[in-house]
Amino acid sequence: MATQRSDPTVVVVGTGLIGTSIGLAARAAGEPVALRDLDAARMALAASLGAGVPMPPSSQGAGSSARAGVDSVRLVVVAVPPRATASVVVEQLRLFPNATVTHVSSVQALPQREVEASSVPSARFVGSHPIAGREVSGPVGASADLFRDRPWVICPAAASDETAVDAVAGFANLVGAQPVVLPAEEHDRLLARLSHVPQLVASALAASLQRLPNGRAALAGSGIRDTTRLADSSPQLWAQIVGANAREVSEALRAVAAPLLALADELGSASLDPSEAERLVAALVEQGRIGRSLLPGKHGRAATPLSVVQVSVPDEPGALARLLAEVAADGINLEDLRVEHAPGSPVGAALVSVAPADEARLVRSLAAHGWSAVPGGQAPL
Amino acid sequence: MATQRSDPTVVVVGTGLIGTSIGLAARAAGEPVALRDLDAARMALAASLGAGVPMPPSSQGAGSSARAGVDSVRLVVVAVPPRATASVVVEQLRLFPNATVTHVSSVQALPQREVEASSVPSARFVGSHPIAGREVSGPVGASADLFRDRPWVICPAAASDETAVDAVAGFANLVGAQPVVLPAEEHDRLLARLSHVPQLVASALAASLQRLPNGRAALAGSGIRDTTRLADSSPQLWAQIVGANAREVSEALRAVAAPLLALADELGSASLDPSEAERLVAALVEQGRIGRSLLPGKHGRAATPLSVVQVSVPDEPGALARLLAEVAADGINLEDLRVEHAPGSPVGAALVSVAPADEARLVRSLAAHGWSAVPGGQAPL
Repeated sequence: MATQRSDPTVVVVGTGLIGTSIGLAARAAGEPVALRDLDAARMALAASLGAGVPMPPSSQGAGSSARAGVDSVRLVVVAVPPRATASVVVEQLRLFPNATVTHVSSVQALPQREVEASSVPSARFVGSHPIAGREVSGPVGASADLFRDRPWVICPAAASDETAVDAVAGFANLVGAQPVVLPAEEHDRLLARLSHVPQLVASALAASLQRLPNGRAALAGSGIRDTTRLADSSPQLWAQIVGANAREVSEALRAVAAPLLALADELGSASLDPSEAERLVAALVEQGRIGRSLLPGKHGRAATPLSVVQVSVPDEPGALARLLAEVAADGINLEDLRVEHAPGSPVGAALVSVAPADEARLVRSLAAHGWSAVPGGQAPL
Repeated sequence: MATQRSDPTVVVVGTGLIGTSIGLAARAAGEPVALRDLDAARMALAASLGAGVPMPPSSQGAGSSARAGVDSVRLVVVAVPPRATASVVVEQLRLFPNATVTHVSSVQALPQREVEASSVPSARFVGSHPIAGREVSGPVGASADLFRDRPWVICPAAASDETAVDAVAGFANLVGAQPVVLPAEEHDRLLARLSHVPQLVASALAASLQRLPNGRAALAGSGIRDTTRLADSSPQLWAQIVGANAREVSEALRAVAAPLLALADELGSASLDPSEAERLVAALVEQGRIGRSLLPGKHGRAATPLSVVQVSVPDEPGALARLLAEVAADGINLEDLRVEHAPGSPVGAALVSVAPADEARLVRSLAAHGWSAVPGGQAPL
């Protein structure tokens, strides 16, 4: 990364995972970036990774000697926890008179209302949300590629100038993301269903594992591991996200939990008719298949079914690479790949997904190279 | 697979995915296998795959000319849908006087009660459940390796002989599985929590996606894809499984759904205190982290945290193989690997998991080979 010599055009406030990634992505696109953070050590780490240059304290006020470092700024991106978002946005609108100010919170309507209720004019304010993240936090996990090909939702406020919206959309394009303009309320309603409720459901399912007798979770298969993967996330972050989107999450969560509780009641009823129980479960699973088919597939196409081939792979360096090299040598493109290990096993299963048209060729290729392979992905217990 | 010349020692009834896999695994271990199925075409397909020899109709009665094909049988494995399991078990106890008869249903207590209520003596009967499966069904998806290193739960009935339990445990060992003896009721209680409820929760979550406005599911991230992966499963199969374990599923489902509905009520309450909302969510997510930590890790060890490194990989044949070959050449062992594609992208992200001690070395190795890699796994939106 070349040393920055120009005055900053982009300021990033908050150098956690997302803020540092924004700095890295902007620097990679050639923008001079200044960093701001109350935590000087974290900001120094982000700067050392190449995310930008710490803004000198003198420029952070309005001293005339530092006007150049302020007036050059065209975009300020606020990447702080949800609870602090609005007040930091208002502060930046005051500090940087020529800049569009956006934030990147997982919740949009509440900070928008809070900014609108402040005394600063909000024509230069536009909320936004890049749909990308990691399980880790902090600058060390950051990546210039984090936003590449991800949606970046932009939520204009009533007072937002068109030029402000364009500035954020242009920045999203600059870092490889796909800008999508939505009202803040619609963003929050969608994200409640696509992100916030799945998080709570995964956590509740994982929490219920504590009721198992000691050691019995060893009988778990891959199904519950997938279903609870989100449960590793941060309690504090999710408390703020859900707290700031409580009404939408409430409604979306009820839409999932109420039918499940009704089904639990039916299944536990003393007068349950077994064929009625089966009818209820079949209907739920069938509706789930329909809903699942709505999720996007690769390359933004509608989800298309893939053929899965299971291959036994010894758990040693190079085995998987050899397999993939042999498949690639036959010109077959992998659509997806997962590796699974059974408890106690020195052998893993590679689940190789290819377009259905390639399945037979893949199986022949693997067999020709001596792999034990069969069509069919791994499923619930 | 050598042609079978001996009289069968193992009979498999039902040549779907599991039955055919059992036949293949037994044949691979050298046992002569006979197949039975009401669907002659499916049985012929299983036989053509090497799962065993179709049992001639004459041996299926008790004609004296065919006694050899009956008397030689030591183990009968019934692999039919849950609803038919008990009656088929009873039939096999009558047909094969020297054999232990087991089944492989996902539910144990109900078929056990049904067999015990029949007029046949049940000393030779032991239910069992190999914890393995696939999303596909039918003999074509079968694999001799399906049970390798998976738990195979064995549920003795009150009248079961010890020799019958040993026969099933011995067979489980023969095909590479790990026998675990549990009472049928405990099996059903555990599987309700580890398998049946996760299925219903994933289906309900996926079903709720139908409420999204047209096309908006395109904003989905990897979190909801993982959480709803099970929702692709078969409605008919799951109707029978849940129907046969209704009481345990009811209780386990209520333990997940009731707290979620209570949380939905709290979050939707007009008098909600925001800090109370945050406290409730933080507590749920924290409990989920604890529950999730109980799931088994690789090689049957307790789950240990892995370091995840994200690498950009062009979506073309050979790219992933080259990456893995270079990692392997540096002697680094992959613990897990996933490939993800963003909507609209010609580039995928490989999420490479390694032991934490290997993370720094992996990042250096990738960088040295010119890959764009950063520590940190992909997370919720």
